[in-house]
Amino acid sequence: MNAALLIDDVRLTPILISDPPLLNTQGVHQPYTPRLVVEVVTRGGVTGVGETYGDGTYLDLARPLAEALRGHSVTDVNGLFRLADQVCGGSPAPGAQGTDARVEADGLRGVRTADKLRLSVVSGFEVACLDALGKTLGLPVHALLGGKVRDAVDFSAYLFHRWAAHPAGGEEDDWGPALDPAGIVAQARRFADEHGFCSFKLKGGVFPPDQEIAAVRALAEAFPGRPLRLDPNGAWSVETSLYVAEQLGGVLEYLEDPAACTDRMAEIAARTTVPLATNMCVTTFPEIAAAFTRGAVQVVLSDHHYWGGLYRTRELAAVCRAFGVGLSMHSNTHLGISLAAMTHVAATVPNLDYACDSHYPWQTEDVITARHVFEGGRLAVSDAPGLGVELDRERLAALHRRWLDDDGTMRERDDAAAMRRADPAWVTPAVPRW
Amino acid sequence: MNAALLIDDVRLTPILISDPPLLNTQGVHQPYTPRLVVEVVTRGGVTGVGETYGDGTYLDLARPLAEALRGHSVTDVNGLFRLADQVCGGSPAPGAQGTDARVEADGLRGVRTADKLRLSVVSGFEVACLDALGKTLGLPVHALLGGKVRDAVDFSAYLFHRWAAHPAGGEEDDWGPALDPAGIVAQARRFADEHGFCSFKLKGGVFPPDQEIAAVRALAEAFPGRPLRLDPNGAWSVETSLYVAEQLGGVLEYLEDPAACTDRMAEIAARTTVPLATNMCVTTFPEIAAAFTRGAVQVVLSDHHYWGGLYRTRELAAVCRAFGVGLSMHSNTHLGISLAAMTHVAATVPNLDYACDSHYPWQTEDVITARHVFEGGRLAVSDAPGLGVELDRERLAALHRRWLDDDGTMRERDDAAAMRRADPAWVTPAVPRW
Ligand SMILES: [Mg+2]
Ligand SMILES: [Mg+2]
Repeated sequence: MNAALLIDDVRLTPILISDPPLLNTQGVHQPYTPRLVVEVVTRGGVTGVGETYGDGTYLDLARPLAEALRGHSVTDVNGLFRLADQVCGGSPAPGAQGTDARVEADGLRGVRTADKLRLSVVSGFEVACLDALGKTLGLPVHALLGGKVRDAVDFSAYLFHRWAAHPAGGEEDDWGPALDPAGIVAQARRFADEHGFCSFKLKGGVFPPDQEIAAVRALAEAFPGRPLRLDPNGAWSVETSLYVAEQLGGVLEYLEDPAACTDRMAEIAARTTVPLATNMCVTTFPEIAAAFTRGAVQVVLSDHHYWGGLYRTRELAAVCRAFGVGLSMHSNTHLGISLAAMTHVAATVPNLDYACDSHYPWQTEDVITARHVFEGGRLAVSDAPGLGVELDRERLAALHRRWLDDDGTMRERDDAAAMRRADPAWVTPAVPRW
Repeated sequence: MNAALLIDDVRLTPILISDPPLLNTQGVHQPYTPRLVVEVVTRGGVTGVGETYGDGTYLDLARPLAEALRGHSVTDVNGLFRLADQVCGGSPAPGAQGTDARVEADGLRGVRTADKLRLSVVSGFEVACLDALGKTLGLPVHALLGGKVRDAVDFSAYLFHRWAAHPAGGEEDDWGPALDPAGIVAQARRFADEHGFCSFKLKGGVFPPDQEIAAVRALAEAFPGRPLRLDPNGAWSVETSLYVAEQLGGVLEYLEDPAACTDRMAEIAARTTVPLATNMCVTTFPEIAAAFTRGAVQVVLSDHHYWGGLYRTRELAAVCRAFGVGLSMHSNTHLGISLAAMTHVAATVPNLDYACDSHYPWQTEDVITARHVFEGGRLAVSDAPGLGVELDRERLAALHRRWLDDDGTMRERDDAAAMRRADPAWVTPAVPRW
């Protein structure tokens, strides 16, 4: 095999990136959130980059995997999973498949399991390997996935209730507060003007359902005919979910995770015609069968971090296709490396039925030299070798410096803890919250 | 994009290869069977090879697709499906999802649909593209699929009731007849001695079930503890299938397609603990949901020809993995190009739970310069660029000459017609036959 493709070195750079005070049912985004930048350097002298979660639990898994990766070929992405099992331990999840435990256990992505953590770490390495491979071969990452089936990928505006500023510290921005329907419509308008987004998703679960219903109705009035979504991250009971579905049935493209587990989603799905989407009850392959056989979800929001990389994302898409389940794409706070990776894999999936989510417009900081630009709410698919992005080492060093200088407060993302800085009495709401 | 990877020329070479008088429930293999060899030649001067079915219906689809492929990149395997839809017509299947119609419609692979034909044709082009891509990049095909997870792939011996010779014409061989349990055991013994196969599959549906039960019992006695399979290609009723399952429950690894449709397979599965395998009721992605949600099958035999190539085979594997359904690999009469392709994709699939089928040991003719050699029933996975096989142009020309010279009798594989040459009264048996 080609010795130039063997991995000589792996660099891990934890960073803290600024994040606005976006609200969700757990609390509020911290002023800074951790991410991990992965670089693999081949014997051929090519560097590939990847990006994933940067909290301590992820770093603890990433470090031994980085060590183990030396001498491994960047072509061998299938082998990453076995390697991760060996290095990070293949033991199953701490914490069972409870119902309410889901949201408590890992905030906004269902039950936290060892498997999920490992897959999210692998995803950063997989993307870095594919970037290095593409750069070496002179091929874009999408070509390494069988080739793009579209030249641009649609994204939706990701609307949040938010404060004007973090209560203590953090970078400033000029968005101002959005705490009522008018604020949400103004935010949507700016997103549409600046990026051309044609569909809109509102993060819900923050205010009582009637206020969020009013916000979605205001969006429907301001943007007639445009696809709208509402995602309370499992904050509602079955009855509340059905009430919201009834109130918004005419205007919602889909209702995302109204309730927090497959059982409840199945019950809701059986009683409404509004499609239900999820990135909480179907987040790993073993969770698919129960949800799909019961018709609990009509749309899965894939996420290459959750699912273990771009190859696995394509496999998830194939499962959805076989079962007639729609496919969209989930996002967490991320930078331009992950947005490039999302765009490449999204470009190769025939059944990408919905515009993808992305927090990217909320991120003013990045580690790439040329920020991605949405035009008409779309990103053009790069045909440059690899991901088509270049690392800005100065910015990377500065954001890493921030991580080094942090006293530990920001190194673990904890939206509830961030909320407690504004409201010391805040406790993570039990679900269903409403 | 890399101009060297664009397709400059596509060559289609229909051939006739000799085939022994192997019996199945439809009739008998013809003395010669058609195959199609596909060559794509890139601007960089690299030739990639693929192989698929060679009957007229396939040729009629392959010819316009070959024309349309010029200028297409060999990296763009996802685009082959759209191209095939455009060129070959995307209209759905002639013939509905009947029950008994399944077997009548297309012999041994379920209902014949336009989609299936198109996918089988695409598979030959996809493999040729991947071979050319791998040769250009200096990478084995398995590396283009994310890398091998094993260094060798297990195959099982494929046992057939057979005559000593074709009633009229055809090449001779020294296997002699196998028309009773002793003949099957002798055949298995020779396969084990010559190729080291450790598991055995008997093609059934030829003789009344009690005789085939006796043959499997004789194998179990001769090869204690070795995995055994029986595949009557849907020839039995539910009650007969249950009777055979009960008789052979202790010795069968799985029972393959005892009955001819998902409804019946589901009924059998509900009443036996013997795992049911299929390459007849789950042969395309749209057929998966009905079978998996009802637990109708416990093992799917993938086939990269049926499913549309190596990428799609990996996707099928992912669906099986998600649903806890086992994966094995089906074979039809094929040459060394397809065996190489099978081996590459099989090497990359983590959940290849069973040894693969292959007719290859029955094929004395080939179009590659160095025949594959089984050792201990396994094939080593090639790390040479592309598929790792080289076309023997003299042999190819000779087998194409045979196709040109044929009066039309052999150009369409028709096991019932072949049987009528021995027994003019033969009609394709209605199912259930027993
Ligand atoms: Mg969500
Ligand atoms: Mg079969």
